[in-house]
Amino acid sequence: MTLKLGIIGAGRIGRVHADTLTARVAGAEVSIIADIHAPFAQAAAGAFGIPAHTADPAALFDLPELDAIVICSSTDTHTRFIKAAARAGKHIFCEKPIAHDLAEIDAALAAVESAGVQLQIGFNRRFDANHIRLKQAVDSGEVGAPHLLHIISRDPAPPPIDYIAVSGGLMMDMMIHDFDMCRFLLGEVVEVFAMGACMVDPAIGAAGDIDTAKVMLRFENGVIGSIENSRQAVYGYDQRVEVFGSHGAASSGNRHANAVTLSDGRSVRRDLPMNFFMDRYMDSYAAEMAAFVLAIAKDQPVPVNGNDGRAPVVMAKAGMRSLRENRPVRLDEIAGALS
Amino acid sequence: MTLKLGIIGAGRIGRVHADTLTARVAGAEVSIIADIHAPFAQAAAGAFGIPAHTADPAALFDLPELDAIVICSSTDTHTRFIKAAARAGKHIFCEKPIAHDLAEIDAALAAVESAGVQLQIGFNRRFDANHIRLKQAVDSGEVGAPHLLHIISRDPAPPPIDYIAVSGGLMMDMMIHDFDMCRFLLGEVVEVFAMGACMVDPAIGAAGDIDTAKVMLRFENGVIGSIENSRQAVYGYDQRVEVFGSHGAASSGNRHANAVTLSDGRSVRRDLPMNFFMDRYMDSYAAEMAAFVLAIAKDQPVPVNGNDGRAPVVMAKAGMRSLRENRPVRLDEIAGALS
Amino acid sequence: MTLKLGIIGAGRIGRVHADTLTARVAGAEVSIIADIHAPFAQAAAGAFGIPAHTADPAALFDLPELDAIVICSSTDTHTRFIKAAARAGKHIFCEKPIAHDLAEIDAALAAVESAGVQLQIGFNRRFDANHIRLKQAVDSGEVGAPHLLHIISRDPAPPPIDYIAVSGGLMMDMMIHDFDMCRFLLGEVVEVFAMGACMVDPAIGAAGDIDTAKVMLRFENGVIGSIENSRQAVYGYDQRVEVFGSHGAASSGNRHANAVTLSDGRSVRRDLPMNFFMDRYMDSYAAEMAAFVLAIAKDQPVPVNGNDGRAPVVMAKAGMRSLRENRPVRLDEIAGALS
Amino acid sequence: MTLKLGIIGAGRIGRVHADTLTARVAGAEVSIIADIHAPFAQAAAGAFGIPAHTADPAALFDLPELDAIVICSSTDTHTRFIKAAARAGKHIFCEKPIAHDLAEIDAALAAVESAGVQLQIGFNRRFDANHIRLKQAVDSGEVGAPHLLHIISRDPAPPPIDYIAVSGGLMMDMMIHDFDMCRFLLGEVVEVFAMGACMVDPAIGAAGDIDTAKVMLRFENGVIGSIENSRQAVYGYDQRVEVFGSHGAASSGNRHANAVTLSDGRSVRRDLPMNFFMDRYMDSYAAEMAAFVLAIAKDQPVPVNGNDGRAPVVMAKAGMRSLRENRPVRLDEIAGALS
Repeated sequence: MTLKLGIIGAGRIGRVHADTLTARVAGAEVSIIADIHAPFAQAAAGAFGIPAHTADPAALFDLPELDAIVICSSTDTHTRFIKAAARAGKHIFCEKPIAHDLAEIDAALAAVESAGVQLQIGFNRRFDANHIRLKQAVDSGEVGAPHLLHIISRDPAPPPIDYIAVSGGLMMDMMIHDFDMCRFLLGEVVEVFAMGACMVDPAIGAAGDIDTAKVMLRFENGVIGSIENSRQAVYGYDQRVEVFGSHGAASSGNRHANAVTLSDGRSVRRDLPMNFFMDRYMDSYAAEMAAFVLAIAKDQPVPVNGNDGRAPVVMAKAGMRSLRENRPVRLDEIAGALS
Repeated sequence: MTLKLGIIGAGRIGRVHADTLTARVAGAEVSIIADIHAPFAQAAAGAFGIPAHTADPAALFDLPELDAIVICSSTDTHTRFIKAAARAGKHIFCEKPIAHDLAEIDAALAAVESAGVQLQIGFNRRFDANHIRLKQAVDSGEVGAPHLLHIISRDPAPPPIDYIAVSGGLMMDMMIHDFDMCRFLLGEVVEVFAMGACMVDPAIGAAGDIDTAKVMLRFENGVIGSIENSRQAVYGYDQRVEVFGSHGAASSGNRHANAVTLSDGRSVRRDLPMNFFMDRYMDSYAAEMAAFVLAIAKDQPVPVNGNDGRAPVVMAKAGMRSLRENRPVRLDEIAGALS
Repeated sequence: MTLKLGIIGAGRIGRVHADTLTARVAGAEVSIIADIHAPFAQAAAGAFGIPAHTADPAALFDLPELDAIVICSSTDTHTRFIKAAARAGKHIFCEKPIAHDLAEIDAALAAVESAGVQLQIGFNRRFDANHIRLKQAVDSGEVGAPHLLHIISRDPAPPPIDYIAVSGGLMMDMMIHDFDMCRFLLGEVVEVFAMGACMVDPAIGAAGDIDTAKVMLRFENGVIGSIENSRQAVYGYDQRVEVFGSHGAASSGNRHANAVTLSDGRSVRRDLPMNFFMDRYMDSYAAEMAAFVLAIAKDQPVPVNGNDGRAPVVMAKAGMRSLRENRPVRLDEIAGALS
Repeated sequence: MTLKLGIIGAGRIGRVHADTLTARVAGAEVSIIADIHAPFAQAAAGAFGIPAHTADPAALFDLPELDAIVICSSTDTHTRFIKAAARAGKHIFCEKPIAHDLAEIDAALAAVESAGVQLQIGFNRRFDANHIRLKQAVDSGEVGAPHLLHIISRDPAPPPIDYIAVSGGLMMDMMIHDFDMCRFLLGEVVEVFAMGACMVDPAIGAAGDIDTAKVMLRFENGVIGSIENSRQAVYGYDQRVEVFGSHGAASSGNRHANAVTLSDGRSVRRDLPMNFFMDRYMDSYAAEMAAFVLAIAKDQPVPVNGNDGRAPVVMAKAGMRSLRENRPVRLDEIAGALS
């Protein structure tokens, strides 16, 4: 049986999913792609051999042959499309974050629940070989009882200022992946403390955001964690995690396109790490979609559900409050956090 | 325009090419797959969505819609299929080695020449990111004038003894990739000296072959090289190259499925490198096929031609003679070497 | 001219200094070693060829031939000996921390000041090749404007519980080196936030201390830093630092006694890093003493002065208050911090 | 009991031994240093606190208080001093090579034998942490039955042409260390094949020597080895060894003065490896002298004896003959090889 999917959004991430779903995921077929910018939809359809395209995303909910909708449109449209897809009885894959507002998220999750469809959230890093190996090191006891966690996550360059303004801020847009990684590796967090600053580009500060941040986290199980983010690492995408515990440590390094070392009169060097998430995490995008398609096909729970999409939003909100108030903030202080 | 291909051979390497051609190479379409074992052909057709299959390889030459033939059958059939494909005016991709016999190779290359079709030989390692980077280090002058070369090439486990018997021997079957790598990186070799032994499995010796070897090579440009091969590295596929020159050195390391380091009370360790060529070189298979398809589509010379297929056979023959006679052997001693 | 030194304290660190001063530091001569446990003094004198020993530390201040006193006795005796040495006009090298009490420290520093002698504090890590290289990367602009700092510092095993009880606690005893490293690399810190726990050994908690901690730090220049400490890394002494900035990052790894990699059927591994500070930092002890001896000989300022000894004590106090009160604490909240 | 030594030769290597013997080796005392250039002897005596010096090396043999003589003079004087020291009943440490001529070596070894003194040869690399770890990996069975060996040994820059002319050639002067390493790790070699060239500096060729070479070796136990040498690696001293066997591989990397990685917009890099043997192998010089002193003190066999000094000379001669005659040369072809 082949799962038939429709994609909403033919921007960067929409094209990533179109690419992997058409070329690398077994058991899936993309029937249509929608984008409110018609040329985007048309271009993606052409590039990935998708038979139909439309400028009207809502049209997809009426197509009876579609089993699932992949939502890759801008964040402010996510819950609207989730609710519409749920009403239409379609399974849903939605990019992160679900929304910036918890009440809005809760309404969407309720719609999913009552429709009895499945919803997977796009935390692709859970499907990356490095992070999977780290989780295995934790789960198998290789590191023993976990004591400390440190996550480094740095982008090669900041997004356009226009995007910054609607992104929800660094913690909601970028660190949200790291908040999810915390939960993926070590479970629930109860309290966070944040420091942040605008160091990369004053225009980011002028847009009301920060570009550099460090957050400390206390986990339910006692682990003490930290996350550091920068919008700009000149040497490329920097994604490293270390879990330290009673039996040892597991640390991931960056991935490089080649394993060649060059030695000359000045240094012993490697080429830069993979430059951005499109290179670094491409395999994880294929794997998350394969997992989604398989879960739907086998009628099993999806690996990253609505609650997994909601929790990091709470963490981001707690982080932002900590930043504003310069104090540790418990997650249960965030309105509706325990819903 | 889409290139239409037929594949002959649905064994291990045939399936690799079927996989990449159907899923990862743009501008290509596999119309049919043939294998004298009908169930193999059928299974591959099913697995990779190939519309037709046959137990009669010769049938492919009569299909006017086919632009090119991909020959993945056993080595002893290569030249027969090359000649037939050439006569039928099809472009050809053929796995290595072309044949064990130089006269036979020459006849096949002559047929290709007179038919005016293109022939690419399957030295996939030329399309691997590590080896490309090494070549770039040489060509760009990063290592200066090359002085020394060392190639390590070790398989995780020997092939079945049945295969050993028909393989042409370690130098023709396994080291041939390294002979090609020598030429790819540094040009023509003029003389070789070999030492070899059976250390891994006495059954390999009983089959008349060696499983461990080291060869020293003198290049036309004065570089002194060496290659070492083992049929069994218990830690997995070991593929490393170092070029040393007047301005420095370029060394490739193995590739690993993850970049995680684990530290415990006994060691600081990584998981084993990718286990075999199907993991390690999968991207290179896709890249070599993309290059073939592109060259045909653009009517440009293929990147690894018939002569590139012939030269390593001469090197293997020189290596085997050196082994037998325990003396350095010049390539021009091999009958027909200079044709 | 040879500087004549007397050492007070023939315990672990006293023996380290006796060793380097007698064997590896030019221009120095250890005339006498004192320890209130006479057999310790005698043993060290024998081991390192020191001509005299005594069970009465105070006796050293009366020896006119001594140019300098090296104080390696227990922390609670430091300021007493500093003041006595200053009164006697001797230059002073004193181990860290000067004392746990700021008023006591200030009195000692005042005595040093009015005597016109020099006082160097034993922050040996400033003399380690890795940390020096990191500082050079910062000072030379290799990392550009610094944005983030992360320090990992883990001991292979906790000290005896008896010692824990008088140590002043993890932050005063162990993290104090990391507080100093912060200042060495990036200047003054203005605010800290700490999380800590007892995870390694409940006996440490019973003694009123923590064994695992993470501290976030805001620097005067805007850098956001973090330090993590554990009293027990089963794989050995773990000492790594990363400075990230606008032009790149500089990261130090652990040091290993050999550079050999072993590959077998299970992993690719190295032997554990150097096991403890006696191995890892031995060269730095020699270098700090050489720097002390040179500064005295040339009548130049010592590289780590009394204020450098005092500031990390303030940081430790702020960290401990943050831990107690679960809030960020400014260094200027610590009584007398700005003296 | 303290061993009293006299050193002959106050050049580079003489000063290395003077340094380690006076500062880092317990149980040893250097009583006198001799050099036919009086100012050299005087300077070394001053630098290392040696109480006496002389321009007449022969004077040392008459000093009854001397237990041992350390011969660091030029190679052509070695056997003369060995014989004189033996006659005087002194134990002997002599730098490599003993001599270029086997008959001369044999006469010296006979003198040592009949005098009943001990002779240790200066193959310091046997005392290096990397090489010791490799040997341990072989001896403990970590790599299983050894199959292949590869040794890379490159100097940062060629010696002066004047020295080249009297050095005995690259194989006698430089590769001799690698020949010894072969024996240290894997036992006796029976046959060698060499290729060599002058690539670094034509003046070296004009002096009748090569500066770049690769040698293949067949061991008595069947192992196939190779050594590559270059007189000039622009990135510094390059000393790496890999042993491959039935259970895995052990590979040594270069040693670096620091473990810091720098990432910027162009590369991820380290500083160059330690630049030359004075840095890279300094610890091994101290360790070899400590082993010599200990063996004499305990009346135990020295770890590197006269035969260990002779065998690599035979290997170098076989290598040079192979180079001249372009054929594999058995060690038993070398006159007197089996004495």
